[in-house]
Amino acid sequence: MYQRDKTGAKMKQFLSINDVPDLNGLLDKALNIKANLNGKRELGKHKSIGLIFLNPSLRTRLSSQRAALNLGMDAIVLDVNSGGWKLEFDDGVIMNGDSAEHVKEAAGVLGRYFDVLAIRSFAALEDREKDYEDAVLNAFAEYSGVPIINMESATGHPLQAFADLITITEHQKKSRPKVVLSWAPHPKALPQAVANSFVRWMKASNVDLMVTHPNGYELADTIMEGVSVEYDQNIAFDNADFIYAKNWSSYTNYGKVLSSDSSWMITQEKMNLTNNAKFLHCLPVRRNVVVEDAVLDSTSSIVLDQAENRIVSMQTVLESLLEELK
Amino acid sequence: MYQRDKTGAKMKQFLSINDVPDLNGLLDKALNIKANLNGKRELGKHKSIGLIFLNPSLRTRLSSQRAALNLGMDAIVLDVNSGGWKLEFDDGVIMNGDSAEHVKEAAGVLGRYFDVLAIRSFAALEDREKDYEDAVLNAFAEYSGVPIINMESATGHPLQAFADLITITEHQKKSRPKVVLSWAPHPKALPQAVANSFVRWMKASNVDLMVTHPNGYELADTIMEGVSVEYDQNIAFDNADFIYAKNWSSYTNYGKVLSSDSSWMITQEKMNLTNNAKFLHCLPVRRNVVVEDAVLDSTSSIVLDQAENRIVSMQTVLESLLEELK
Amino acid sequence: MYQRDKTGAKMKQFLSINDVPDLNGLLDKALNIKANLNGKRELGKHKSIGLIFLNPSLRTRLSSQRAALNLGMDAIVLDVNSGGWKLEFDDGVIMNGDSAEHVKEAAGVLGRYFDVLAIRSFAALEDREKDYEDAVLNAFAEYSGVPIINMESATGHPLQAFADLITITEHQKKSRPKVVLSWAPHPKALPQAVANSFVRWMKASNVDLMVTHPNGYELADTIMEGVSVEYDQNIAFDNADFIYAKNWSSYTNYGKVLSSDSSWMITQEKMNLTNNAKFLHCLPVRRNVVVEDAVLDSTSSIVLDQAENRIVSMQTVLESLLEELK
Repeated sequence: MYQRDKTGAKMKQFLSINDVPDLNGLLDKALNIKANLNGKRELGKHKSIGLIFLNPSLRTRLSSQRAALNLGMDAIVLDVNSGGWKLEFDDGVIMNGDSAEHVKEAAGVLGRYFDVLAIRSFAALEDREKDYEDAVLNAFAEYSGVPIINMESATGHPLQAFADLITITEHQKKSRPKVVLSWAPHPKALPQAVANSFVRWMKASNVDLMVTHPNGYELADTIMEGVSVEYDQNIAFDNADFIYAKNWSSYTNYGKVLSSDSSWMITQEKMNLTNNAKFLHCLPVRRNVVVEDAVLDSTSSIVLDQAENRIVSMQTVLESLLEELK
Repeated sequence: MYQRDKTGAKMKQFLSINDVPDLNGLLDKALNIKANLNGKRELGKHKSIGLIFLNPSLRTRLSSQRAALNLGMDAIVLDVNSGGWKLEFDDGVIMNGDSAEHVKEAAGVLGRYFDVLAIRSFAALEDREKDYEDAVLNAFAEYSGVPIINMESATGHPLQAFADLITITEHQKKSRPKVVLSWAPHPKALPQAVANSFVRWMKASNVDLMVTHPNGYELADTIMEGVSVEYDQNIAFDNADFIYAKNWSSYTNYGKVLSSDSSWMITQEKMNLTNNAKFLHCLPVRRNVVVEDAVLDSTSSIVLDQAENRIVSMQTVLESLLEELK
Repeated sequence: MYQRDKTGAKMKQFLSINDVPDLNGLLDKALNIKANLNGKRELGKHKSIGLIFLNPSLRTRLSSQRAALNLGMDAIVLDVNSGGWKLEFDDGVIMNGDSAEHVKEAAGVLGRYFDVLAIRSFAALEDREKDYEDAVLNAFAEYSGVPIINMESATGHPLQAFADLITITEHQKKSRPKVVLSWAPHPKALPQAVANSFVRWMKASNVDLMVTHPNGYELADTIMEGVSVEYDQNIAFDNADFIYAKNWSSYTNYGKVLSSDSSWMITQEKMNLTNNAKFLHCLPVRRNVVVEDAVLDSTSSIVLDQAENRIVSMQTVLESLLEELK
């Protein structure tokens, strides 16, 4: 298991894994928090978090509220219909068009209203360069004056990846398990955010990571640096301890669905190639498209544990940030 | 008045009146709770309820939150645009269409996030057999692993019926009042849920129940078993102590509006046929379509008491469930 | 500074400045509350507020929730899609059309559910007489039976004006500063509510108020009685201590945009005509349409202080009302 390596560095924000000064320490903390979710109801007393959604959310919205309430915080959700409140991000623009407010003011005001802000803003999947600037998240970090938590940005979903790491840690039977991230088919074009963050967090953890996907689904080089890719899914599954299924649209042919090849669906037959692997998916999942019923309904599936750990990852991040606010 | 008959049986969920082991006991409890709404602020401490709306709600949403907060619970509302988060209920389906998530995962996750779940999911009024399976409510009960509260399903609205019973109990002047459920006109096709539950709860209570409606508006046989029907509204109103007005669409000619005969509107003239009856309606009500201004604006109308008792019925159910969670 | 003039009169509701018995006392109270926002967490215990939005809101929604939570209240937000829940306001109507509920019932029920109600309902800008009756706000005040707070009605936005007054008080350097309300261009037709309330509150305060706007943008006579108007913006700015920029559509040619003359935009050059004035705007603001970047990005801009004081104005009003509920 992981050893605690206290670096003494503090978390100031949570935009990505780069903001985690001590991953093993954070993981230990998460496991302790999970053992006593209501142990720090006083820590967040009289502190408030604004949960700002520019895109739809079910799990993230609910788990984040639960985490904040478990810490005694005042949690307020704001659903922003991105059409109804179009923000301007560029400097010097004459705002006589659709944008009713500049992010300088929007973030500035929200920073006056809350001690911590959490933001969701998806990739539009039209302009890769623009998406990968993560303009919304970074602008809030720049202009709000308070710690920002990423609740899935254009390029990453670190709360999910942290929950995934917690789940793998809880279920691992060997000190360095083989973890396979497998692309799977999906009828719609989905962002790379979940896959990106999963790869980054696994690279930083004590696991053997392998990624498998069809040709054309390569993730960004900066993400994949040092990671094994295997284009044959069956070979990738060999001896795997964890199979993490996820669809994403193409990064190279940006935002496009290149393949809906159902042979990439995760089946029980493929799971039989593994070392009795556990199955993970961030949900929602399309049954018999991404993964067979037989897998999801088996004891190998730990997708509900994963979802439950979304409370734990958020609560751990919030607790870390609140300790710094004190 | 009702005598307390403690059976010792416990409430495990609240899908319908079938889940109430001791109706008189529950009613007594409600009256006690109403006398001191904040008396149990500690009971729900560190417990959470998820209020899941697949259809719009005003009264139910607000009264349910008030009830949960009165018990010290963390209450979180989730509005699900049923178009935006289409759930799959059938087994074995290849989910490459509109449905993004199977109820097995949706309910499973929500059950991990909350100690209690409350669900609203209306009848679609297209396919009677499908509606009367109450698929959404029952799937959440099956897959969530936590107690489920019905906040109006396709076939019933027991929180409303319980509030109605509390209201009648508060206003009754004789030990066995005559209660008349009268169909009334409405421009839109409405579900039978409120009427179904009202009939079921009144049958189980110490009242003389009579139902009056035009031909073709018969409720399901299983609901109406043992209940008097009178097709002449004037005869039905004779000597009534309570008039409960409600529109519903046809059950036999399913979901259809067969009549908009304004002679069925509740007027002061008709109220004069009664034993100075009190007037009830679950609201919202269309004035001068369902009922005349003169009735709603008279002291006979107790519709606001009824609405207020929605807090009481929910709080009583929640308190009963929380006692079992301890 | 302002002297406290305790009249002993109590606040019963907050529809407009007419409901403030002692403006100086209220302002003192606000400054004390701001110094200790969590000082009265017990006052609102077991009290609830319903925040009812018939129109969109970001700042008002968030600041109002923060204020209520700071006072320990249960705060519940209800977003009413005005299309989805069309209310009837007229008496005696046969409600067989779009309106599903009469405000008598809607307000009556909400009054049973909450100790205090706050309402937002904008001007439609089509029928001046109708808008200026402020039908929604007044109907809730008439039928709810509980104190009503105006969160921006068709004709006024007193919580904003009170926040503006607090902000000016915090930043003023002389006992009677010159305050200029300047119309500014905007691509859309906006209500007069903010301008109306700002004028009324400033008239009641110890400031020299001047209003400047193009021909045709005169506010209602009842509002402007006793207020200096200057049609030359440059002359108005001379020696000003505070510039409050705001667009509104025409009152005389009701709801119309008569001018988008960009020469009325607030520029740094114009600010140079003032006595080193502070710049205010209620936000959201369109940069380089209403006001130049150079002004908003300068230390003269106090728009974020203004936004922050929205919590303070709401909390002060709520505290005043709660003291009366006790």
